[in-house]
Amino acid sequence: MPKESKLQIIPLGGLGEIGKNTTAIRYNNQILIIDAGLAFPDEDMYGVDLVIPDYTYLIENKDLILGILITHGHEDHIGGLPYLLRHFNVPIFGTRLAIGLVQYKLTEAKLGQITTQVIQPGETIKLGSFAIDFINGSHSIPGSVGLALHSPLGTIIHSGDFKLDHTPVSGEVLDIHKFSELGDKGVLCLLSDSTNVERPGFTKSERLVGENIDKAFAGAEGRVIFASFASNVNRLQQAITAAFKYHRKVAAVGRSMVNVVSIAAELGYLHVPEDTLIDVDEAMCLPSNQVCILTTGSQGEPMAALTRMANHNHRQISIYPGDTVILSASPIPGNEKAVSRNIDQLFKLGAKVIYESLSGMHVSGHASQEELKLMLSMVKPKYFIPVHGEYRMLMKHAELAVQVGIPRENIFVAEIGNVIEFTRHGAKLANNVTAGRVFIDGLGIGDIGSSVMKERSLLSQDGILIIILAFDSATNTILTGPDVVTRGFVYVRESNAILDEVKAITRETIARSIQNGIHETNLLQNRVRDAVSRHLYAKTKRRPMVIPIFQEV
Amino acid sequence: MPKESKLQIIPLGGLGEIGKNTTAIRYNNQILIIDAGLAFPDEDMYGVDLVIPDYTYLIENKDLILGILITHGHEDHIGGLPYLLRHFNVPIFGTRLAIGLVQYKLTEAKLGQITTQVIQPGETIKLGSFAIDFINGSHSIPGSVGLALHSPLGTIIHSGDFKLDHTPVSGEVLDIHKFSELGDKGVLCLLSDSTNVERPGFTKSERLVGENIDKAFAGAEGRVIFASFASNVNRLQQAITAAFKYHRKVAAVGRSMVNVVSIAAELGYLHVPEDTLIDVDEAMCLPSNQVCILTTGSQGEPMAALTRMANHNHRQISIYPGDTVILSASPIPGNEKAVSRNIDQLFKLGAKVIYESLSGMHVSGHASQEELKLMLSMVKPKYFIPVHGEYRMLMKHAELAVQVGIPRENIFVAEIGNVIEFTRHGAKLANNVTAGRVFIDGLGIGDIGSSVMKERSLLSQDGILIIILAFDSATNTILTGPDVVTRGFVYVRESNAILDEVKAITRETIARSIQNGIHETNLLQNRVRDAVSRHLYAKTKRRPMVIPIFQEV
Repeated sequence: MPKESKLQIIPLGGLGEIGKNTTAIRYNNQILIIDAGLAFPDEDMYGVDLVIPDYTYLIENKDLILGILITHGHEDHIGGLPYLLRHFNVPIFGTRLAIGLVQYKLTEAKLGQITTQVIQPGETIKLGSFAIDFINGSHSIPGSVGLALHSPLGTIIHSGDFKLDHTPVSGEVLDIHKFSELGDKGVLCLLSDSTNVERPGFTKSERLVGENIDKAFAGAEGRVIFASFASNVNRLQQAITAAFKYHRKVAAVGRSMVNVVSIAAELGYLHVPEDTLIDVDEAMCLPSNQVCILTTGSQGEPMAALTRMANHNHRQISIYPGDTVILSASPIPGNEKAVSRNIDQLFKLGAKVIYESLSGMHVSGHASQEELKLMLSMVKPKYFIPVHGEYRMLMKHAELAVQVGIPRENIFVAEIGNVIEFTRHGAKLANNVTAGRVFIDGLGIGDIGSSVMKERSLLSQDGILIIILAFDSATNTILTGPDVVTRGFVYVRESNAILDEVKAITRETIARSIQNGIHETNLLQNRVRDAVSRHLYAKTKRRPMVIPIFQEV
Repeated sequence: MPKESKLQIIPLGGLGEIGKNTTAIRYNNQILIIDAGLAFPDEDMYGVDLVIPDYTYLIENKDLILGILITHGHEDHIGGLPYLLRHFNVPIFGTRLAIGLVQYKLTEAKLGQITTQVIQPGETIKLGSFAIDFINGSHSIPGSVGLALHSPLGTIIHSGDFKLDHTPVSGEVLDIHKFSELGDKGVLCLLSDSTNVERPGFTKSERLVGENIDKAFAGAEGRVIFASFASNVNRLQQAITAAFKYHRKVAAVGRSMVNVVSIAAELGYLHVPEDTLIDVDEAMCLPSNQVCILTTGSQGEPMAALTRMANHNHRQISIYPGDTVILSASPIPGNEKAVSRNIDQLFKLGAKVIYESLSGMHVSGHASQEELKLMLSMVKPKYFIPVHGEYRMLMKHAELAVQVGIPRENIFVAEIGNVIEFTRHGAKLANNVTAGRVFIDGLGIGDIGSSVMKERSLLSQDGILIIILAFDSATNTILTGPDVVTRGFVYVRESNAILDEVKAITRETIARSIQNGIHETNLLQNRVRDAVSRHLYAKTKRRPMVIPIFQEV
């Protein structure tokens, strides 16, 4: 008897958190992956560089994977590819800019052998039992699409990241006709972007930012230093347009800014008038009112170009009175303090700083409530899965869907690893698959777990105190030491007294333990650790990690 | 020849940062201190509990200090008192609630001998050559005042923290008549609150929040758990009023909430109907629709009551489906992620969470641009010093003052330690005094400097690796070891290979160094540290702190 056909939606990232968007769509023994993003670490992920999803499910089923569909070229949608594709080789499908950015990334990771294929918005491709429509979207990067995956059990629509922008800078308009048409034909399930679900109304058009950018350029006397996400290509376009209008040459600074500008310009997504783009070195030689610098660092990232400029340690560019610095991005939650520090520093250096909360220099690339309702109304899905948001946003998006008329029992506020399974008879949650987050620290992928993180957290709070001695267990005597080494605990030069106390307590504890018949090094170390920890807490109310190391000679 | 009289304004905190507001006003040999606040640490101040100003200037001039004037009872205005007053004993002046909160703090710090004096808003006191008016303000805590300090060289006005609230909950209205009258008579210098200078328009009335709180209580079915700053007494009043109206008893949870509620109620600032306030234990026995819990933790502070509830580890209170949690506070910059995590957790536990960005459950206690202009227009100061804000806010406030007609050259955008000096001939910046920030970590005040902080930062990123061996320098042989201990670097059980490499490199480096005639322990340790660090970076792209400890036996 043939098993009943099943269609499964398996979110592996981007639910309950922002970033690392990765979703598996499985029809019987065929898997498609939508996006493969990464996330940046929270401040309590000590030493972590990047976060990717746990790929166990995909690796275990790698022979079933037909390909990876990319909705757009942002890091939270493509940044995981180099880590995913070391496990298997499957083709990648996306629009021209998305694929351009993907190829750069793969080449850097020495994964140039991976097949990529450029798909035009409006095109349909066939992979296994799936037919897939690439549907024009509208977002802060050109070449953003939504996807319709037609399977024998019905159509799944993934909104991608989108907003409704009737006057987009890129000329790309959300294809409401296509979404509506699909809705009319019947959609089994919609997955839709929840990023801005907490905002009422409509998100403003990118073009409004352009007007403010124009004004800022018109009023600028010295250099214009324009900071934004490198990946916000539409924003860069507007800065370049303004620069050209006001007779300024443009130089890109910061690795990702240089890359994106060159890739987007080469692929024709960024329209740069001839002779406008120059090197930073050239820019340094021009009069300041003929210069515009595009730079990274709008989030206050410690190593980014603008942060270095603010702190006076950028190799090439210093900030001078008369410079106008435009921050054309909102701080992502968690970055507010770092951004504020940069702004303060730039002001102190004499720059005129134009930043978002005062200036209309940023609009979001994501749909607000009314646009989200429009998407739901156009698509009229039978089932709905809010994606791309923290848990409370998914909940809120579910509420909107109920308002629009989707029955509450047809909405899945899912977590990563959940399997939402469709058969001819309906939908249900099937057994979970392995899912989670994997930390990347340096070259290590997934080797930093909760125990190492806990140690880093403890070390960051009160440091470490190490007690070393050489011990002759034959005679029960201390041969050398105890010596005490600390890091991050106290300022050693002013702390001789307490370190002497630690030594005395170590000697006493050992002597007393031996009197009580305790000789084993491990036990002695434990007793000393406890006694010293207690003493340090009583004296300082701090809890450094205490590590006694007794060498038996 | 008598020296010319001088009046100096010396900000020691609250400029270029939010928090630890502390200002010295000096007339010849008489000093008044306005407020003595603390700040909470930024996320890069590892292990720091609190931050206070450097009090060197005040300690060196303690014999000149006439008293401390308190504008209101918030931590960023009174939290530094226990640290300041261990250096000298001077009287403290403030309104009844401010003094009530100060006394509690001093008693806790065993500084009960300090004299305090309650001043009514509207009263004037004399201290040395100063006459000081306490002027009714309007802020999120009752008993907030502005101050006018009349000196022989002119009048200085300090706005305190204020907003213009025509329908305040406390019944206290900003005394615009007094500020106007003083303005008419002539004011030498105004110091004014810059917290909300980035917000256009007027700050909304606290009463509007009350309407939303009422609605939330009206719709709540299970318990209402109301989180806000304990010190936002007007907000607590509105929650208590709503609880009473909807027949709920009120229990306070969290140390500071319990304290403030009891002090404010006792002093008559919080109007609690009889039998409304109960213990948490009692509340646990009531039907859930008769309970309101006032709790700390609106900022996602890890140890606060609401955070514990969200994480299911509060001793007394668990969250159940049906509970309504109201977050009646905005996240302070830096706290956004922690607050979001709490909200997500509470949603997952089944609570209905009403939080600010959706709900109108919070308004600020600080004046927006139009109110700040009103203050400037009423007071018409000759000179202006924006205070209580980060540098960019001070700059913005200076712009507003220029718009209102204050000459740019009469505005001082100052930094802490600056001395703004007035004589009969005018105003200028005199020589700076010592100023800065002092970290409190456990019992240590100021012993954590930049070197210890740097170590904690390094430890937090990649941990530590310790290499121990016992060495016989007579024979140049290793007696025991090398042993390797790591914390926060790698997961040890899976890292035997790399730790073995470290041991091998240690042995080789020592052998080669000795061949080259290097015997001294220090030098050997340095060489091993460098060789091991290089190897670890090449292998892992991580930079743990490497500490070789060679014991000579």
